[in-house]
Amino acid sequence: MQISSSSFNQAVDQLSSLPGIGKKTALRLVLHLLNRSKDDVKDFGNSFVYLADEINYCSSCYNISEHQLCSVCSNLNRNNQLICVVENVLDVIAIENTNQFKGKYHVLGGIISPMEGIGPNDIKVAELIHRVKEENITELIMALSTTMEGDATNFYIYKKLKEFDVKITTIARGIGVGDELEYTDELTLGRSILNRIPFENTLSL
Amino acid sequence: MQISSSSFNQAVDQLSSLPGIGKKTALRLVLHLLNRSKDDVKDFGNSFVYLADEINYCSSCYNISEHQLCSVCSNLNRNNQLICVVENVLDVIAIENTNQFKGKYHVLGGIISPMEGIGPNDIKVAELIHRVKEENITELIMALSTTMEGDATNFYIYKKLKEFDVKITTIARGIGVGDELEYTDELTLGRSILNRIPFENTLSL
Repeated sequence: MQISSSSFNQAVDQLSSLPGIGKKTALRLVLHLLNRSKDDVKDFGNSFVYLADEINYCSSCYNISEHQLCSVCSNLNRNNQLICVVENVLDVIAIENTNQFKGKYHVLGGIISPMEGIGPNDIKVAELIHRVKEENITELIMALSTTMEGDATNFYIYKKLKEFDVKITTIARGIGVGDELEYTDELTLGRSILNRIPFENTLSL
Repeated sequence: MQISSSSFNQAVDQLSSLPGIGKKTALRLVLHLLNRSKDDVKDFGNSFVYLADEINYCSSCYNISEHQLCSVCSNLNRNNQLICVVENVLDVIAIENTNQFKGKYHVLGGIISPMEGIGPNDIKVAELIHRVKEENITELIMALSTTMEGDATNFYIYKKLKEFDVKITTIARGIGVGDELEYTDELTLGRSILNRIPFENTLSL
């Protein structure tokens, strides 16, 4: 049975278009919204209209920002010559929460994925190359997912920047802090042996 | 770290106000929306503004409806004297999908729950009593959840309608079709023995 109300069905369809929200969950959520006041439901909807109109990206790193430069890029205490390349804004938040990184970011807005039709021109690679050229960057830390797509993006950027005088590093892959050796997969364990580090380096942490 | 964009944070807050959607999921969903075109995000928001403005309830049974009467109430082939009392629209859909009920509905819009501050006046009980008085109803099928709140609502309505000449029944509680006896809880099993039915009744199904 379908409910014969186009406004209701439209709202359900819109909610269920989000990843992880099925038709039944969307139905429940819309019914939940209808228990609120009319103004509350309008505020809910208008917040997304407002989002579409007002959302701004930092003109330097493409992080989400209210102003022309985001709070990281406009912070004078941060290292201008060190850029951490990430896939999206969630990664910026995750790295900022570690308090271990004092450089700036570059948000690609995706990774190269032929399966999903995302090529180098669909993400902010050209803008990254421009920054490396113009801003006297000394090191680029690649912090993308350890997937095939992440590796392909890493390699593409590496190839494009080979000619420039910039050091390219990636974040360390290894066994997570607190993880037990016997439950670690062979690939990670193998790599963590290949990429072993001097013991003295861990003493300062 | 917080993202310094009020439009972004507002959209995240609105989404995470929905039941079952936490802050992190809301963040992901808003980032997903931002990958769509500006018009798509506006359509998403406007569907809820439209919902708030246009949503209508059937003037008889309080089901969601585009017109004054919902598709069930305006169907001349359905039994006018039989009303199934349910908590919300999802229950109407569930019962309609069984194809076993040919009467009409009454959507209470909630059940009596002192813990959540929902009293008899917050749900459509008075409207139900009015229908029983005016519409020559012969049977009322109570189809509420088997919770304390559902039982309290059943009992409240039963007491209010005692004086009228209307038969009040509840849907059968028992072991689900396909369930195994040994995994059924004692309460359900006990009740299914007390409320046993003549074997002949099951042959027609």
